[in-house]
Amino acid sequence: MNSPHLRKGSKKPPVAAKGKLRLYSNRFCPYSQRIMLVLDAKKIAYDVVNINLYSKPDWYYDISPLGKIPALELEQGDVLYESLIIADYLDEKYRAHHLHNPDPLQKAKDRLLIEEFNRVVNAMTKILTSIGRVNLDDDQVIANGLTNFERELHNRGTAYFGGTKPGMLDLMIWPWCERAEILKIFGNSNLLKKDKYRNLLEWCKRMTEESTIKRSMMESATHIKYLQSYRAGRPDYDMILNSSD
Amino acid sequence: MNSPHLRKGSKKPPVAAKGKLRLYSNRFCPYSQRIMLVLDAKKIAYDVVNINLYSKPDWYYDISPLGKIPALELEQGDVLYESLIIADYLDEKYRAHHLHNPDPLQKAKDRLLIEEFNRVVNAMTKILTSIGRVNLDDDQVIANGLTNFERELHNRGTAYFGGTKPGMLDLMIWPWCERAEILKIFGNSNLLKKDKYRNLLEWCKRMTEESTIKRSMMESATHIKYLQSYRAGRPDYDMILNSSD
Repeated sequence: MNSPHLRKGSKKPPVAAKGKLRLYSNRFCPYSQRIMLVLDAKKIAYDVVNINLYSKPDWYYDISPLGKIPALELEQGDVLYESLIIADYLDEKYRAHHLHNPDPLQKAKDRLLIEEFNRVVNAMTKILTSIGRVNLDDDQVIANGLTNFERELHNRGTAYFGGTKPGMLDLMIWPWCERAEILKIFGNSNLLKKDKYRNLLEWCKRMTEESTIKRSMMESATHIKYLQSYRAGRPDYDMILNSSD
Repeated sequence: MNSPHLRKGSKKPPVAAKGKLRLYSNRFCPYSQRIMLVLDAKKIAYDVVNINLYSKPDWYYDISPLGKIPALELEQGDVLYESLIIADYLDEKYRAHHLHNPDPLQKAKDRLLIEEFNRVVNAMTKILTSIGRVNLDDDQVIANGLTNFERELHNRGTAYFGGTKPGMLDLMIWPWCERAEILKIFGNSNLLKKDKYRNLLEWCKRMTEESTIKRSMMESATHIKYLQSYRAGRPDYDMILNSSD
Protein backbone atom coordinates (compact mmCIF):
# COMPACT_ATOMS: atom_id res chain seq x y z
CA MET A 1 0.00 0.00 0.00
CA ASN A 2 3.08 2.25 0.08
CA SER A 3 3.86 1.86 -3.62
CA PRO A 4 4.70 5.02 -5.63
CA HIS A 5 1.74 7.16 -6.70
CA LEU A 6 1.39 6.85 -10.47
CA ARG A 7 1.09 10.09 -12.38
CA LYS A 8 0.41 11.39 -15.89
CA GLY A 9 2.78 9.66 -18.31
CA SER A 10 3.27 6.59 -16.12
CA LYS A 11 2.74 3.13 -17.57
CA LYS A 12 -0.48 1.30 -16.81
CA PRO A 13 0.35 -1.55 -14.42
CA PRO A 14 -0.47 -5.17 -15.43
CA VAL A 15 -3.73 -6.63 -14.11
CA ALA A 16 -3.81 -7.97 -10.56
CA ALA A 17 -2.62 -11.53 -9.92
CA LYS A 18 -5.34 -14.18 -10.15
CA GLY A 19 -7.45 -14.30 -7.00
CA LYS A 20 -6.65 -10.73 -6.00
CA LEU A 21 -8.87 -7.67 -6.11
CA ARG A 22 -7.23 -4.38 -7.01
CA LEU A 23 -7.75 -1.17 -5.08
CA TYR A 24 -6.96 2.11 -6.83
CA SER A 25 -6.10 4.31 -3.93
CA ASN A 26 -4.09 7.17 -2.49
CA ARG A 27 -2.06 6.58 0.66
CA PHE A 28 -3.42 9.69 2.37
CA CYS A 29 -7.06 9.46 1.26
CA PRO A 30 -9.33 8.56 4.20
CA TYR A 31 -12.03 7.22 1.82
CA SER A 32 -9.51 4.81 0.30
CA GLN A 33 -8.45 3.79 3.80
CA ARG A 34 -12.07 2.80 4.49
CA ILE A 35 -11.77 0.13 1.79
CA MET A 36 -8.37 -1.10 3.01
CA LEU A 37 -9.89 -1.46 6.48
CA VAL A 38 -12.77 -3.53 5.10
CA LEU A 39 -10.52 -5.69 2.91
CA ASP A 40 -8.11 -6.27 5.81
CA ALA A 41 -10.87 -7.00 8.34
CA LYS A 42 -12.46 -9.50 5.97
CA LYS A 43 -9.07 -11.02 5.02
CA ILE A 44 -9.67 -10.52 1.29
CA ALA A 45 -6.57 -10.68 -0.95
CA TYR A 46 -5.88 -7.44 -2.85
CA ASP A 47 -3.17 -5.29 -4.28
CA VAL A 48 -2.98 -1.51 -4.28
CA VAL A 49 -2.26 0.87 -7.14
CA ASN A 50 -1.68 4.37 -5.81
CA ILE A 51 -2.76 7.30 -7.94
CA ASN A 52 -1.31 10.81 -7.82
CA LEU A 53 -4.43 12.95 -7.44
CA TYR A 54 -2.74 16.11 -8.68
CA SER A 55 -1.58 14.47 -11.91
CA LYS A 56 -3.76 11.47 -12.75
CA PRO A 57 -2.52 9.10 -15.46
CA ASP A 58 -4.63 9.24 -18.65
CA TRP A 59 -5.24 5.47 -18.53
CA TYR A 60 -6.87 5.88 -15.11
CA TYR A 61 -9.94 7.46 -16.77
CA ASP A 62 -10.50 4.17 -18.63
CA ILE A 63 -10.78 2.47 -15.25
CA SER A 64 -12.64 5.18 -13.32
CA PRO A 65 -14.43 7.47 -15.82
CA LEU A 66 -14.62 10.40 -13.41
CA GLY A 67 -11.07 9.75 -12.16
CA LYS A 68 -12.42 9.08 -8.68
CA ILE A 69 -10.63 7.10 -6.00
CA PRO A 70 -11.11 4.75 -4.28
CA ALA A 71 -12.07 2.38 -7.08
CA LEU A 72 -12.17 -1.38 -6.68
CA GLU A 73 -11.43 -3.53 -9.71
CA LEU A 74 -12.93 -7.00 -9.50
CA GLU A 75 -11.54 -10.15 -11.05
CA GLN A 76 -13.94 -10.08 -14.00
CA GLY A 77 -12.92 -6.48 -14.76
CA ASP A 78 -15.90 -4.68 -13.24
CA VAL A 79 -15.04 -1.52 -11.32
CA LEU A 80 -16.93 -0.10 -8.34
CA TYR A 81 -16.65 3.42 -6.87
CA GLU A 82 -17.98 5.27 -3.80
CA SER A 83 -16.48 4.05 -0.55
CA LEU A 84 -19.76 3.16 1.18
CA ILE A 85 -21.10 1.25 -1.84
CA ILE A 86 -17.80 -0.65 -2.21
CA ALA A 87 -17.77 -1.45 1.53
CA ASP A 88 -21.36 -2.75 1.48
CA TYR A 89 -20.62 -4.78 -1.66
CA LEU A 90 -17.62 -6.46 -0.04
CA ASP A 91 -19.61 -7.28 3.08
CA GLU A 92 -22.41 -8.85 1.03
CA LYS A 93 -20.20 -10.71 -1.43
CA TYR A 94 -17.70 -12.11 1.11
CA ARG A 95 -19.80 -13.48 3.92
CA ALA A 96 -16.97 -14.42 6.32
CA HIS A 97 -16.03 -11.88 9.02
CA HIS A 98 -19.29 -9.95 8.50
CA LEU A 99 -19.10 -6.28 9.39
CA HIS A 100 -22.69 -5.04 9.20
CA ASN A 101 -25.04 -6.13 11.96
CA PRO A 102 -27.19 -9.00 10.64
CA ASP A 103 -30.32 -7.31 12.05
CA PRO A 104 -31.70 -4.98 9.31
CA LEU A 105 -32.84 -2.38 11.88
CA GLN A 106 -29.47 -2.15 13.64
CA LYS A 107 -27.75 -2.05 10.26
CA ALA A 108 -30.00 0.85 9.17
CA LYS A 109 -29.28 2.71 12.43
CA ASP A 110 -25.53 2.24 11.91
CA ARG A 111 -25.84 3.51 8.33
CA LEU A 112 -27.64 6.61 9.67
CA LEU A 113 -24.75 7.20 12.10
CA ILE A 114 -22.26 6.90 9.24
CA GLU A 115 -24.29 9.55 7.36
CA GLU A 116 -24.38 11.71 10.48
CA PHE A 117 -20.61 11.42 10.82
CA ASN A 118 -20.28 13.12 7.41
CA ARG A 119 -20.87 16.43 9.16
CA VAL A 120 -17.78 15.79 11.32
CA VAL A 121 -15.86 14.72 8.21
CA ASN A 122 -16.73 17.93 6.35
CA ALA A 123 -15.81 20.17 9.27
CA MET A 124 -12.53 18.29 9.86
CA THR A 125 -11.62 18.47 6.17
CA LYS A 126 -12.07 22.24 6.21
CA ILE A 127 -9.90 22.63 9.30
CA LEU A 128 -7.16 20.20 8.25
CA THR A 129 -6.82 21.21 4.60
CA SER A 130 -7.74 24.87 5.12
CA ILE A 131 -9.83 24.58 1.97
CA GLY A 132 -13.09 26.43 2.42
CA ARG A 133 -13.61 29.13 4.99
CA VAL A 134 -13.10 27.72 8.49
CA ASN A 135 -15.42 29.19 11.08
CA LEU A 136 -16.28 28.69 14.72
CA ASP A 137 -19.23 26.53 13.71
CA ASP A 138 -16.86 23.86 12.42
CA ASP A 139 -15.48 23.32 15.94
CA GLN A 140 -19.03 23.13 17.21
CA VAL A 141 -20.08 20.63 14.53
CA ILE A 142 -17.16 18.38 15.49
CA ALA A 143 -17.89 18.72 19.21
CA ASN A 144 -21.60 17.94 18.70
CA GLY A 145 -20.79 14.98 16.49
CA LEU A 146 -18.31 13.51 18.94
CA THR A 147 -20.73 14.05 21.82
CA ASN A 148 -23.36 12.02 19.95
CA PHE A 149 -20.91 9.21 19.26
CA GLU A 150 -19.65 9.28 22.88
CA ARG A 151 -23.26 8.88 24.07
CA GLU A 152 -23.94 6.16 21.51
CA LEU A 153 -20.91 4.09 22.58
CA HIS A 154 -21.82 4.57 26.24
CA ASN A 155 -25.40 3.40 25.57
CA ARG A 156 -24.23 0.35 23.64
CA GLY A 157 -21.90 -0.53 26.52
CA THR A 158 -19.66 -2.53 24.17
CA ALA A 159 -15.94 -2.34 23.36
CA TYR A 160 -16.70 -1.37 19.75
CA PHE A 161 -19.75 0.08 18.00
CA GLY A 162 -19.94 -3.34 16.34
CA GLY A 163 -19.86 -5.20 19.68
CA THR A 164 -16.88 -7.34 20.71
CA LYS A 165 -15.00 -6.53 17.48
CA PRO A 166 -14.95 -3.57 15.08
CA GLY A 167 -17.95 -3.55 12.72
CA MET A 168 -18.83 -1.48 9.66
CA LEU A 169 -19.60 1.68 11.66
CA ASP A 170 -16.25 1.46 13.50
CA LEU A 171 -14.34 1.07 10.24
CA MET A 172 -16.21 3.77 8.28
CA ILE A 173 -15.50 6.49 10.87
CA TRP A 174 -11.99 5.31 11.82
CA PRO A 175 -9.88 7.15 9.17
CA TRP A 176 -10.98 10.50 10.59
CA CYS A 177 -10.60 9.36 14.20
CA GLU A 178 -7.05 8.30 13.39
CA ARG A 179 -6.49 11.92 12.31
CA ALA A 180 -8.41 13.51 15.22
CA GLU A 181 -5.30 14.01 17.36
CA ILE A 182 -3.84 16.37 14.73
CA LEU A 183 -6.83 18.72 15.04
CA LYS A 184 -4.91 20.03 18.04
CA ILE A 185 -2.15 21.20 15.70
CA PHE A 186 -4.27 22.67 12.91
CA GLY A 187 -7.38 23.65 14.81
CA ASN A 188 -8.60 24.39 18.29
CA SER A 189 -6.43 22.67 20.89
CA ASN A 190 -9.33 22.65 23.37
CA LEU A 191 -11.53 20.62 21.08
CA LEU A 192 -10.77 17.10 22.26
CA LYS A 193 -11.22 17.23 26.02
CA LYS A 194 -10.31 13.92 27.62
CA ASP A 195 -13.07 14.02 30.25
CA LYS A 196 -15.82 14.70 27.70
CA TYR A 197 -14.97 11.77 25.41
CA ARG A 198 -13.79 9.09 27.82
CA ASN A 199 -15.49 6.18 26.01
CA LEU A 200 -14.44 7.38 22.57
CA LEU A 201 -10.81 7.81 23.60
CA GLU A 202 -10.73 4.29 25.07
CA TRP A 203 -12.31 3.05 21.85
CA CYS A 204 -9.59 4.85 19.85
CA LYS A 205 -6.90 3.13 21.91
CA ARG A 206 -8.50 -0.29 21.38
CA MET A 207 -8.81 0.38 17.63
CA THR A 208 -5.09 1.16 17.32
CA GLU A 209 -4.30 -2.19 18.92
CA GLU A 210 -6.29 -4.24 16.37
CA SER A 211 -3.92 -5.96 13.95
CA THR A 212 -6.25 -5.46 10.94
CA ILE A 213 -6.44 -1.73 11.67
CA LYS A 214 -2.71 -1.38 12.27
CA ARG A 215 -2.03 -2.44 8.68
CA SER A 216 -3.20 0.85 7.10
CA MET A 217 -2.57 3.09 10.12
CA MET A 218 -0.16 6.02 10.05
CA GLU A 219 1.39 8.00 12.90
CA SER A 220 0.14 11.50 13.66
CA ALA A 221 3.60 12.83 12.76
CA THR A 222 3.20 11.39 9.23
CA HIS A 223 -0.28 12.87 8.84
CA ILE A 224 1.02 16.26 10.00
CA LYS A 225 3.97 16.19 7.60
CA TYR A 226 1.69 15.22 4.70
CA LEU A 227 -0.84 17.95 5.52
CA GLN A 228 1.91 20.54 5.69
CA SER A 229 3.02 19.52 2.17
CA TYR A 230 -0.61 19.57 1.01
CA ARG A 231 -1.25 23.01 2.46
CA ALA A 232 1.92 24.25 0.78
CA GLY A 233 0.43 23.16 -2.58
CA ARG A 234 2.89 20.28 -3.07
CA PRO A 235 1.26 17.16 -1.58
CA ASP A 236 4.06 14.66 -0.93
CA TYR A 237 2.13 11.44 -1.56
CA ASP A 238 5.32 9.36 -1.69
CA MET A 239 6.62 10.65 1.63
CA ILE A 240 6.60 7.24 3.35
CA LEU A 241 8.28 5.59 0.40
CA ASN A 242 11.00 8.25 0.33
CA SER A 243 11.65 8.30 4.05
CA SER A 244 12.35 4.60 4.59
CA ASP A 245 13.38 1.44 2.77
CA MET B 1 -51.82 9.58 1.62
CA ASN B 2 -53.95 12.65 0.84
CA SER B 3 -54.67 13.49 4.49
CA PRO B 4 -54.27 17.15 5.59
CA HIS B 5 -50.71 18.34 6.22
CA LEU B 6 -50.34 18.87 9.96
CA ARG B 7 -48.86 22.19 11.02
CA LYS B 8 -47.62 23.98 14.15
CA GLY B 9 -50.32 23.83 16.79
CA SER B 10 -51.94 20.69 15.42
CA LYS B 11 -52.59 17.72 17.70
CA LYS B 12 -50.22 14.78 17.58
CA PRO B 13 -52.06 11.89 15.95
CA PRO B 14 -52.49 8.59 17.85
CA VAL B 15 -49.99 5.82 17.08
CA ALA B 16 -50.53 3.68 13.98
CA ALA B 17 -52.92 0.72 14.21
CA LYS B 18 -51.28 -2.57 15.21
CA GLY B 19 -49.46 -4.18 12.30
CA LYS B 20 -49.02 -0.92 10.41
CA LEU B 21 -45.89 1.10 9.84
CA ARG B 22 -46.25 4.87 9.80
CA LEU B 23 -44.75 7.12 7.17
CA TYR B 24 -44.29 10.79 8.02
CA SER B 25 -44.46 12.37 4.62
CA ASN B 26 -45.42 15.28 2.43
CA ARG B 27 -47.67 14.69 -0.56
CA PHE B 28 -45.39 16.60 -2.93
CA CYS B 29 -42.01 15.41 -1.63
CA PRO B 30 -40.30 13.07 -4.14
CA TYR B 31 -38.14 11.52 -1.39
CA SER B 32 -41.27 10.59 0.56
CA GLN B 33 -42.77 9.17 -2.62
CA ARG B 34 -39.75 6.84 -2.87
CA ILE B 35 -40.82 5.21 0.39
CA MET B 36 -44.49 4.96 -0.64
CA LEU B 37 -43.35 3.25 -3.83
CA VAL B 38 -41.30 0.73 -1.84
CA LEU B 39 -44.05 0.09 0.70
CA ASP B 40 -46.65 -0.32 -2.07
CA ALA B 41 -44.41 -2.57 -4.21
CA LYS B 42 -43.69 -4.79 -1.20
CA LYS B 43 -47.34 -4.75 -0.08
CA ILE B 44 -46.45 -3.60 3.44
CA ALA B 45 -49.30 -2.11 5.50
CA TYR B 46 -48.77 1.54 6.49
CA ASP B 47 -50.50 4.77 7.23
CA VAL B 48 -49.38 8.26 6.29
CA VAL B 49 -49.11 11.37 8.42
CA ASN B 50 -48.50 14.41 6.23
CA ILE B 51 -46.38 17.23 7.62
CA ASN B 52 -46.54 20.88 6.56
CA LEU B 53 -42.89 21.64 5.81
CA TYR B 54 -43.34 25.40 6.16
CA SER B 55 -44.84 25.11 9.61
CA LYS B 56 -43.81 21.85 11.27
CA PRO B 57 -45.67 20.81 14.43
CA ASP B 58 -43.51 21.01 17.58
CA TRP B 59 -44.23 17.36 18.42
CA TYR B 60 -42.71 16.31 15.10
CA TYR B 61 -39.23 17.09 16.46
CA ASP B 62 -39.75 14.39 19.10
CA ILE B 63 -40.21 11.91 16.26
CA SER B 64 -37.62 13.24 13.81
CA PRO B 65 -35.05 15.34 15.75
CA LEU B 66 -33.97 17.33 12.69
CA GLY B 67 -37.57 17.63 11.50
CA LYS B 68 -36.70 15.69 8.36
CA ILE B 69 -39.17 13.85 6.16
CA PRO B 70 -39.59 11.12 5.08
CA ALA B 71 -39.39 9.36 8.44
CA LEU B 72 -40.60 5.81 8.98
CA GLU B 73 -41.92 4.87 12.41
CA LEU B 74 -41.70 1.17 13.15
CA GLU B 75 -44.03 -0.81 15.37
CA GLN B 76 -41.63 -0.83 18.33
CA GLY B 77 -41.30 2.98 18.12
CA ASP B 78 -37.94 3.18 16.33
CA VAL B 79 -37.76 5.86 13.65
CA LEU B 80 -35.61 5.75 10.49
CA TYR B 81 -34.73 8.67 8.18
CA GLU B 82 -32.99 9.12 4.81
CA SER B 83 -34.96 7.72 1.90
CA LEU B 84 -32.26 5.35 0.60
CA ILE B 85 -31.54 3.91 4.05
CA ILE B 86 -35.27 3.42 4.73
CA ALA B 87 -35.73 1.77 1.31
CA ASP B 88 -32.82 -0.63 1.86
CA TYR B 89 -34.06 -1.44 5.37
CA LEU B 90 -37.54 -2.32 4.08
CA ASP B 91 -36.08 -4.53 1.36
CA GLU B 92 -33.91 -6.42 3.87
CA LYS B 93 -36.51 -6.70 6.60
CA TYR B 94 -39.45 -7.72 4.40
CA ARG B 95 -38.09 -10.42 2.11
CA ALA B 96 -41.16 -10.89 -0.11
CA HIS B 97 -41.28 -8.93 -3.40
CA HIS B 98 -37.54 -8.20 -3.22
CA LEU B 99 -36.50 -5.01 -5.02
CA HIS B 100 -32.70 -5.09 -4.98
CA ASN B 101 -30.99 -7.56 -7.27
CA PRO B 102 -29.91 -10.57 -5.16
CA ASP B 103 -26.45 -10.48 -6.80
CA PRO B 104 -24.24 -8.16 -4.69
CA LEU B 105 -22.39 -6.84 -7.76
CA GLN B 106 -25.55 -5.92 -9.67
CA LYS B 107 -26.97 -4.39 -6.50
CA ALA B 108 -23.81 -2.26 -6.08
CA LYS B 109 -23.99 -1.15 -9.73
CA ASP B 110 -27.64 -0.16 -9.27
CA ARG B 111 -26.76 1.80 -6.12
CA LEU B 112 -24.07 3.64 -8.11
CA LEU B 113 -26.67 4.55 -10.73
CA ILE B 114 -28.99 5.86 -8.00
CA GLU B 115 -26.10 8.04 -6.75
CA GLU B 116 -25.40 9.18 -10.30
CA PHE B 117 -29.05 10.12 -10.73
CA ASN B 118 -28.62 12.63 -7.88
CA ARG B 119 -27.02 14.99 -10.36
CA VAL B 120 -30.21 14.94 -12.42
CA VAL B 121 -32.25 15.41 -9.23
CA ASN B 122 -30.24 18.47 -8.19
CA ALA B 123 -30.45 20.09 -11.61
CA MET B 124 -34.21 19.37 -11.87
CA THR B 125 -34.83 20.76 -8.38
CA LYS B 126 -33.12 24.03 -9.33
CA ILE B 127 -35.16 24.36 -12.52
CA LEU B 128 -38.51 23.36 -11.04
CA THR B 129 -38.33 25.29 -7.77
CA SER B 130 -36.21 28.16 -9.13
CA ILE B 131 -34.23 27.97 -5.88
CA GLY B 132 -30.56 28.40 -6.64
CA ARG B 133 -29.25 30.04 -9.77
CA VAL B 134 -30.37 28.06 -12.82
CA ASN B 135 -27.78 27.96 -15.58
CA LEU B 136 -27.32 26.32 -18.95
CA ASP B 137 -25.24 23.59 -17.31
CA ASP B 138 -28.34 22.30 -15.52
CA ASP B 139 -29.96 21.42 -18.85
CA GLN B 140 -26.75 19.70 -19.88
CA VAL B 141 -26.53 17.73 -16.61
CA ILE B 142 -30.08 16.47 -17.13
CA ALA B 143 -29.44 15.61 -20.80
CA ASN B 144 -26.21 13.73 -19.92
CA GLY B 145 -27.88 11.88 -17.07
CA LEU B 146 -30.84 10.81 -19.20
CA THR B 147 -28.51 9.74 -22.02
CA ASN B 148 -26.66 7.45 -19.58
CA PHE B 149 -29.89 5.94 -18.34
CA GLU B 150 -31.21 5.54 -21.91
CA ARG B 151 -28.02 3.62 -22.81
CA GLU B 152 -28.21 1.56 -19.61
CA LEU B 153 -31.79 0.47 -20.27
CA HIS B 154 -30.95 -0.31 -23.89
CA ASN B 155 -27.97 -2.43 -22.78
CA ARG B 156 -30.03 -4.32 -20.22
CA GLY B 157 -32.65 -5.03 -22.87
CA THR B 158 -35.33 -5.49 -20.21
CA ALA B 159 -38.71 -3.84 -19.64
CA TYR B 160 -37.50 -2.32 -16.38
CA PHE B 161 -34.06 -1.62 -14.89
CA GLY B 162 -35.00 -4.37 -12.41
CA GLY B 163 -35.85 -6.87 -15.19
CA THR B 164 -39.42 -8.03 -15.78
CA LYS B 165 -40.76 -5.85 -12.96
CA PRO B 166 -39.69 -2.53 -11.38
CA GLY B 167 -36.77 -2.98 -8.97
CA MET B 168 -35.11 -0.64 -6.49
CA LEU B 169 -33.38 1.45 -9.18
CA ASP B 170 -36.68 1.95 -11.05
CA LEU B 171 -38.46 3.07 -7.88
CA MET B 172 -35.70 5.36 -6.57
CA ILE B 173 -35.55 7.41 -9.79
CA TRP B 174 -39.28 7.32 -10.58
CA PRO B 175 -40.51 10.38 -8.57
CA TRP B 176 -38.36 12.68 -10.74
CA CYS B 177 -39.28 10.87 -13.95
CA GLU B 178 -42.96 11.34 -13.06
CA ARG B 179 -42.16 15.07 -12.94
CA ALA B 180 -39.96 15.13 -16.07
CA GLU B 181 -42.78 16.12 -18.39
CA ILE B 182 -43.24 19.41 -16.53
CA LEU B 183 -39.64 20.44 -17.26
CA LYS B 184 -41.11 21.54 -20.57
CA ILE B 185 -43.18 24.15 -18.73
CA PHE B 186 -40.57 25.43 -16.29
CA GLY B 187 -37.39 24.79 -18.22
CA ASN B 188 -36.16 24.15 -21.70
CA SER B 189 -38.91 22.71 -23.89
CA ASN B 190 -36.32 21.07 -26.17
CA LEU B 191 -34.84 19.03 -23.34
CA LEU B 192 -36.83 15.82 -23.65
CA LYS B 193 -36.54 14.85 -27.27
CA LYS B 194 -38.59 11.76 -28.05
CA ASP B 195 -36.07 10.26 -30.48
CA LYS B 196 -33.15 10.57 -28.06
CA TYR B 197 -34.83 8.77 -25.16
CA ARG B 198 -36.98 6.16 -26.87
CA ASN B 199 -36.30 3.38 -24.35
CA LEU B 200 -36.73 5.68 -21.35
CA LEU B 201 -40.02 7.07 -22.64
CA GLU B 202 -41.37 3.55 -23.19
CA TRP B 203 -40.17 2.67 -19.69
CA CYS B 204 -42.02 5.73 -18.34
CA LYS B 205 -45.21 4.59 -20.01
CA ARG B 206 -44.88 1.06 -18.58
CA MET B 207 -44.19 2.49 -15.11
CA THR B 208 -47.40 4.56 -15.18
CA GLU B 209 -49.36 1.40 -15.93
CA GLU B 210 -48.09 -0.50 -12.86
CA SER B 211 -50.80 -0.62 -10.20
CA THR B 212 -48.30 -0.23 -7.31
CA ILE B 213 -46.88 2.89 -8.93
CA LYS B 214 -50.29 4.35 -9.78
CA ARG B 215 -51.13 4.51 -6.06
CA SER B 216 -48.85 7.49 -5.30
CA MET B 217 -48.80 8.97 -8.81
CA MET B 218 -50.03 12.47 -9.58
CA GLU B 219 -50.96 14.09 -12.88
CA SER B 220 -48.60 16.64 -14.45
CA ALA B 221 -51.35 19.27 -14.07
CA THR B 222 -51.33 18.71 -10.29
CA HIS B 223 -47.52 18.94 -10.11
CA ILE B 224 -47.63 22.17 -12.13
CA LYS B 225 -50.30 23.71 -9.92
CA TYR B 226 -48.38 22.78 -6.78
CA LEU B 227 -45.09 24.17 -8.15
CA GLN B 228 -46.80 27.41 -9.07
CA SER B 229 -48.03 27.75 -5.48
CA TYR B 230 -44.54 26.84 -4.19
CA ARG B 231 -42.82 29.36 -6.41
CA ALA B 232 -45.29 32.01 -5.22
CA GLY B 233 -44.12 31.32 -1.64
CA ARG B 234 -47.43 29.71 -0.59
CA PRO B 235 -47.03 25.94 -1.19
CA ASP B 236 -50.54 24.48 -1.32
CA TYR B 237 -49.83 21.06 0.18
CA ASP B 238 -53.52 20.30 0.67
CA MET B 239 -54.43 21.10 -2.92
CA ILE B 240 -55.68 17.59 -3.73
CA LEU B 241 -57.70 17.41 -0.54
CA ASN B 242 -59.32 20.76 -1.26
CA SER B 243 -60.07 20.06 -4.90
CA SER B 244 -62.06 16.85 -4.45
CA ASP B 245 -64.03 14.87 -1.89
